[in-house]
Amino acid sequence: MTARSGWVKIVGLGPGADSLVTLEAQAVLAEATDVVGYIPYVARVADRPGLTKHASDNRVEIARSQHALSMAAEGKRVAVVSSGDPGVFAMASAVFEALEAGPDAWKDLHIEVIPGITASLAAAARAGAPLGHDFCTINLSDNLKPWSLIEKRLRLAVEADFAMAFYNPRSKSRPEGFARVLDLLRETCEPDRLMIFARAVSAPDETLSVVPLSDATPEMADMRTMVIVGSSLTRRIAGTSHVYTPRFVAE
Amino acid sequence: MTARSGWVKIVGLGPGADSLVTLEAQAVLAEATDVVGYIPYVARVADRPGLTKHASDNRVEIARSQHALSMAAEGKRVAVVSSGDPGVFAMASAVFEALEAGPDAWKDLHIEVIPGITASLAAAARAGAPLGHDFCTINLSDNLKPWSLIEKRLRLAVEADFAMAFYNPRSKSRPEGFARVLDLLRETCEPDRLMIFARAVSAPDETLSVVPLSDATPEMADMRTMVIVGSSLTRRIAGTSHVYTPRFVAE
Repeated sequence: MTARSGWVKIVGLGPGADSLVTLEAQAVLAEATDVVGYIPYVARVADRPGLTKHASDNRVEIARSQHALSMAAEGKRVAVVSSGDPGVFAMASAVFEALEAGPDAWKDLHIEVIPGITASLAAAARAGAPLGHDFCTINLSDNLKPWSLIEKRLRLAVEADFAMAFYNPRSKSRPEGFARVLDLLRETCEPDRLMIFARAVSAPDETLSVVPLSDATPEMADMRTMVIVGSSLTRRIAGTSHVYTPRFVAE
Repeated sequence: MTARSGWVKIVGLGPGADSLVTLEAQAVLAEATDVVGYIPYVARVADRPGLTKHASDNRVEIARSQHALSMAAEGKRVAVVSSGDPGVFAMASAVFEALEAGPDAWKDLHIEVIPGITASLAAAARAGAPLGHDFCTINLSDNLKPWSLIEKRLRLAVEADFAMAFYNPRSKSRPEGFARVLDLLRETCEPDRLMIFARAVSAPDETLSVVPLSDATPEMADMRTMVIVGSSLTRRIAGTSHVYTPRFVAE
């Protein structure tokens, strides 16, 4: 195996169910010599002879990316696995950050991003079509950006009347942020604005709840929850559980 | 076959390549008695005994949805096919609109949305990870909403420094809108802001170009083009073709 045959492919495994993995992702995993990623995502890849698994803990994204790139430079075929889509608050940006800061020799490596079903769209599908009109996607974690930027984006998104999908709404180390988000929404949106809390979408322990903003509480979200806030037009169809945003907006 | 066995499943076929279809979407198509959708999407479904295809032209989304719901009410298993993800500027909202306005009996039908790889994420993956930070998704067609709302959302999205993904940027019947979008971006963003034009992603005639805003022209987009505008931090890695948005934003 020569160095030139190595590659890094950053693979989206979708939200959880094997049935939401694409054929392309499966094909990449079948060709890989090494799989790199966060422990629960690496665990989703079936063992087979010739495949070495390198599972690591959360919050070591850059070290994991450097490891993947250095193995590829040695000729390995490295799949970096992410849940959802790797380009949405997942491993793709981390790999590119490591590439940019790394040795020049890495710049010639073949690097490819294999898209997946991202959590916001899987959650939206379960509820109906709440993201059927213009929407925005915001990571509520302030680990890598100032909280003031999150608040600014939320206020502008409400003003634009985007539906909103929130990733990483609340964690044990950041319990207070999502409470502040709810306060901001209550200040800027009507009380019956619909919110969707979709936890562990497509996993066996999936739950889904739809509540008006006035009934939402911080405890409804954790790190496995996708939160969707409707636009002012998002509604539930009477007599059903379907929530959708109409395509039509009047003058 | 009784009426109670009927269903409507709104299925995302992904951006074009068969390898980007999920196993779940394939399973639904294998169980369907009828497939409904826009001509080129229905053509992507393989013929088989027991499957009836109902292809219709663009811009008849509500009539097509009513047809699907009425067949399901008769006990048919109806797959409504969309490209990309059905919940993102595709058939899911249209089906729910038809359901809401339709006979009460339809409200008891089993209706499900099967997510797919949406065009923005497939295009982003080809370029690198331009949507690796907060972003918004805007349909540039003013067929169903006033142009003033599109402009308002664009201005607020630029102020929020979201990366932006544009669906339906330009059509033969709306050749002037995208030129106005470029004018607005030139007025509000720096000239070297990166833009990605990804046409026919994952199809055999796929093309991808990355240009600074100052070099973008209206003719670079058509109805098969996904346009992505980076945030102020989106950049190309020197010595490579990879474009990404860093995860980190300084205070």
